[in-house]
Amino acid sequence: MSALSHVEAVPHVMTIAATLGEVPADLKTIAAWGCYGSSVITGVTAQNTQGVQGVHEIPTDFVMQQLESVWSDAMPRAVKLGMLTSKPTIEMLSGYLSGQMPQHQGGPFLVLDPVMISTSGHHLVPPEAVAAIRDELLPHVDWVTPNIPEALALARRESEVSSLEDMLTLAAELSESFEVQTTLLKGGHFSAKREEVLELQARKSITLPLSQGSSRTLEIAVEWEEWDDEGEGAEVLATYCASIDAPRSPDLVVDMLVRRKGDTIQLFVGRKIDTSSTHGTGCTLSSALACALAQTPAPIGSDSMERDTAVARKAINYVRSAISGAYPLGKGHGPLNHAVLTAPRPLPSPTPANPHPFMTHLIQSDLGLWKSYVKHPFVVQLGQGTLPRECFEHYIKQDYHYLRHYARAHALGAYKSSTFEDIEAFTDIAKHIARESTMHVGFCESFGIGLPEISATPEAAACAAYARYILDVGGQGDILDLYMAVASCLIGYGEVGLWLRKEVDAGRAKLEGNPYKRWIEDYSGPDFIGAVNRGIERRVAADPPSPERLARLTAIWQECVRLERDFWDMGLKRLW
Amino acid sequence: MSALSHVEAVPHVMTIAATLGEVPADLKTIAAWGCYGSSVITGVTAQNTQGVQGVHEIPTDFVMQQLESVWSDAMPRAVKLGMLTSKPTIEMLSGYLSGQMPQHQGGPFLVLDPVMISTSGHHLVPPEAVAAIRDELLPHVDWVTPNIPEALALARRESEVSSLEDMLTLAAELSESFEVQTTLLKGGHFSAKREEVLELQARKSITLPLSQGSSRTLEIAVEWEEWDDEGEGAEVLATYCASIDAPRSPDLVVDMLVRRKGDTIQLFVGRKIDTSSTHGTGCTLSSALACALAQTPAPIGSDSMERDTAVARKAINYVRSAISGAYPLGKGHGPLNHAVLTAPRPLPSPTPANPHPFMTHLIQSDLGLWKSYVKHPFVVQLGQGTLPRECFEHYIKQDYHYLRHYARAHALGAYKSSTFEDIEAFTDIAKHIARESTMHVGFCESFGIGLPEISATPEAAACAAYARYILDVGGQGDILDLYMAVASCLIGYGEVGLWLRKEVDAGRAKLEGNPYKRWIEDYSGPDFIGAVNRGIERRVAADPPSPERLARLTAIWQECVRLERDFWDMGLKRLW
Repeated sequence: MSALSHVEAVPHVMTIAATLGEVPADLKTIAAWGCYGSSVITGVTAQNTQGVQGVHEIPTDFVMQQLESVWSDAMPRAVKLGMLTSKPTIEMLSGYLSGQMPQHQGGPFLVLDPVMISTSGHHLVPPEAVAAIRDELLPHVDWVTPNIPEALALARRESEVSSLEDMLTLAAELSESFEVQTTLLKGGHFSAKREEVLELQARKSITLPLSQGSSRTLEIAVEWEEWDDEGEGAEVLATYCASIDAPRSPDLVVDMLVRRKGDTIQLFVGRKIDTSSTHGTGCTLSSALACALAQTPAPIGSDSMERDTAVARKAINYVRSAISGAYPLGKGHGPLNHAVLTAPRPLPSPTPANPHPFMTHLIQSDLGLWKSYVKHPFVVQLGQGTLPRECFEHYIKQDYHYLRHYARAHALGAYKSSTFEDIEAFTDIAKHIARESTMHVGFCESFGIGLPEISATPEAAACAAYARYILDVGGQGDILDLYMAVASCLIGYGEVGLWLRKEVDAGRAKLEGNPYKRWIEDYSGPDFIGAVNRGIERRVAADPPSPERLARLTAIWQECVRLERDFWDMGLKRLW
Repeated sequence: MSALSHVEAVPHVMTIAATLGEVPADLKTIAAWGCYGSSVITGVTAQNTQGVQGVHEIPTDFVMQQLESVWSDAMPRAVKLGMLTSKPTIEMLSGYLSGQMPQHQGGPFLVLDPVMISTSGHHLVPPEAVAAIRDELLPHVDWVTPNIPEALALARRESEVSSLEDMLTLAAELSESFEVQTTLLKGGHFSAKREEVLELQARKSITLPLSQGSSRTLEIAVEWEEWDDEGEGAEVLATYCASIDAPRSPDLVVDMLVRRKGDTIQLFVGRKIDTSSTHGTGCTLSSALACALAQTPAPIGSDSMERDTAVARKAINYVRSAISGAYPLGKGHGPLNHAVLTAPRPLPSPTPANPHPFMTHLIQSDLGLWKSYVKHPFVVQLGQGTLPRECFEHYIKQDYHYLRHYARAHALGAYKSSTFEDIEAFTDIAKHIARESTMHVGFCESFGIGLPEISATPEAAACAAYARYILDVGGQGDILDLYMAVASCLIGYGEVGLWLRKEVDAGRAKLEGNPYKRWIEDYSGPDFIGAVNRGIERRVAADPPSPERLARLTAIWQECVRLERDFWDMGLKRLW
């Protein structure tokens, strides 16, 4: 089974949240990150892009029963906690999480999106639930991702945020006063200016008064979405944007990351995107964080500011791409484009249950054409031993010429290689073909055709067309194009060899008394079939081609199959 | 904005079903098909891979409120209807669907997965709900996708299915007796043998007695998953499977497609896959059908057996791939791998809000290296007019040699092209470079350096290394590799030109009295910057590279940026 890269198990990430507002966005995010998503429903909402029209709360017991069902069967590696409106559910959940995972040793990562206040300022959660989230739930989670109004509510502050320094203070205070390890304060509610960020960056550190009268000093680290603090290095791209009228807001959004006992506050600075497609931004970010955490290998010491910065960067960049790539839907705030970083894959990976998807695709792409090649009358008559000698002679002389070019094509493959492994594989085949040609010569001699006669024979059009097509594909394209051009000869001759063997067994072809016995034996022998088996799926399993690339490879394959068929035609009809 | 292929709106597909068993599988399928998924929840289940532990039904009114919220805001193009356990909900839904979409004109496609009986034979739905689905709901849907037990229940038959002919009769009877347009009878509960399929296929048509005493004649069309009815044409692949011990079940699964007034029954014959990962197969198939329908353009006459066959084929193939590619999860029947035909896309498409993702990625991939090129001391001194004449002379002679090879590289690009458009673009640039070289010569003459002196100058190592690297990439790779190798010179010189202009405006560089004035003007002029703008995003927007390909392209870019930097070094230090 070593030839097959069986699909790896993917991390399991769960969302505990309400439909429709959250769970679909969460599951789409988890799918886009290549994780397995499960969900526990805390409430069902009647909702669209314009708002929430109704809420149906799921009873606490049934929330817990859902959780038990999944966890007892398949423990997730990370959990995103979303909208929780019921105090009993929050308390039950807190108890479960704290009992299940003492100090989170080995339990899933927990990311809490403390959904409380909507973008438009509506309070979505009753005050007693806010208190329960803050006092009961927060101590048991690893990450919390409030927006500015939610952070103010958690910090029980009435004041507004009117500067980046206010935001810094708020983030530091939150991470100080609660047990939660990592706080990511989302800056979407505050438009920052470039000068303000540069000023903070120049200060390098900040000492903040804390509510208890003490103070905390934090180093300020700044990461810019594009280029760097100088804002320079890409005049060409600014000019390009202007040339295509791409809108560029001067406003910036700053997200802030701080750890409970950390000495650094990390700022992520991005351009504000001018769009109404922002529905589910918070869900998407918290789910993306859960996925990034689930995908992080967790050796000792990896739980660090470096890890958290890398995790936050990946998640924030994903959300930015999903907002940038959104298209309009509905009459209000439309959804993000969660699939912005996924592409259709035209072929699955080989698995034990589906071991050769690429070769299957090629053969199925035009089954009639393929059969016109591998079951050509030339082949049928060859198997029965009824093929006229002069047809075979004409074919074998041309095949000698073809083999010379076929060997050259493999030498070209070696030239096109980037690794010694490929260089060796291609030169081995070139050498093997050179050896095959001496077998050809010996075989021809047994028919009374000497090497001088073979060499002196001009190339027929079918031979020249096919051989030169392969060499041209090799010259024009890369190593994969060339591999595709040489594959149908290898695979097809193996097919002919194996099929004729089967026909012999079924009594529809014969070896004994067949003048072409050795030909059949050569192309069905372990040496040749070994090369065929090594060729199948070889170049595409690791990095499957894009749809457009696959279409081009398929076109090369089909052209070669057609030229192979015409090669038999040339032999059978003794064409020039 | 024409330079940007803004992300197209994708079809909206809705699922009306229960969590956790269905909705996550439905939303994952819809995401994998590149559609936008919404959901209406009919029930919440506590469930895992081993079974259902509890059900919480959503009240009928609230199911309808969810539906109203979404439909009033954004009408889906297709809807998959899943588990419906409540008679009032089914009745309300039927009324809504019939009123909303008289004869389905312009309304969404409706696909009903009549979930009633589990794989293990458990009845999931009370008898009165079964009756309501059959009598109230079925007449309003376009497709119905029962498994064999569900089909028997819908047909009110007690008998068992013990042959393919039994299945045929059942499918025909269902499609005859109900108003539903298209019936897809799933064959997973019956293991067929190859001989039985071949026998049916040989009969070509079948006349079936109907329950009302009449009969119906149907042509039998058979589509095999691999190869064709002869089961031949790919001996190489059977041999390959044997060589890697890939398991191949002899049993077949046959799905049957028939239209109400049609005269053909279409059989899809696939190999039974030996796996326990079959949880959610039915949900996945019905969602996939809804997506395939939503993606089908619907001109007059497209509603045909051809359309339905194509739709069913796509959906069935997807489900087979998702089963084949599944990995174990949980203790019971694990889920399918819904992401089997999606791949991470390392770059989003350009959009107005994110117009140059590829170039941004390249520059950000090593920002320090990029700045060491475009802000090289040679450039800074050139802008200030303080660059020693002999340094510039050394540089300009070498750049003359470089341009010759750079023009040849574009000629090679024309050779590597597949379209006249590319051939013209590359030859235009080659010609432009040839013209640029005469400007070089004229420029040099003003410095007292004649063409004979330039031509007689040997190539410095930095020039030879860079020019020959580009030509080698072009020889080894395909046209995209070559484009990448020539890009950093184009984009980088544009960057230098524009940046020096900005420095002039800021008083940190000068044009007047600067001996290199013309150089700055040339590389910041509309002619050159126009070429830069045409180069940005040009080759990758339509068919974004795979992650491995992007890594190779990035490596070529970085190597060229390094060689560009060394080229300035060579000039400034007058290196050979």
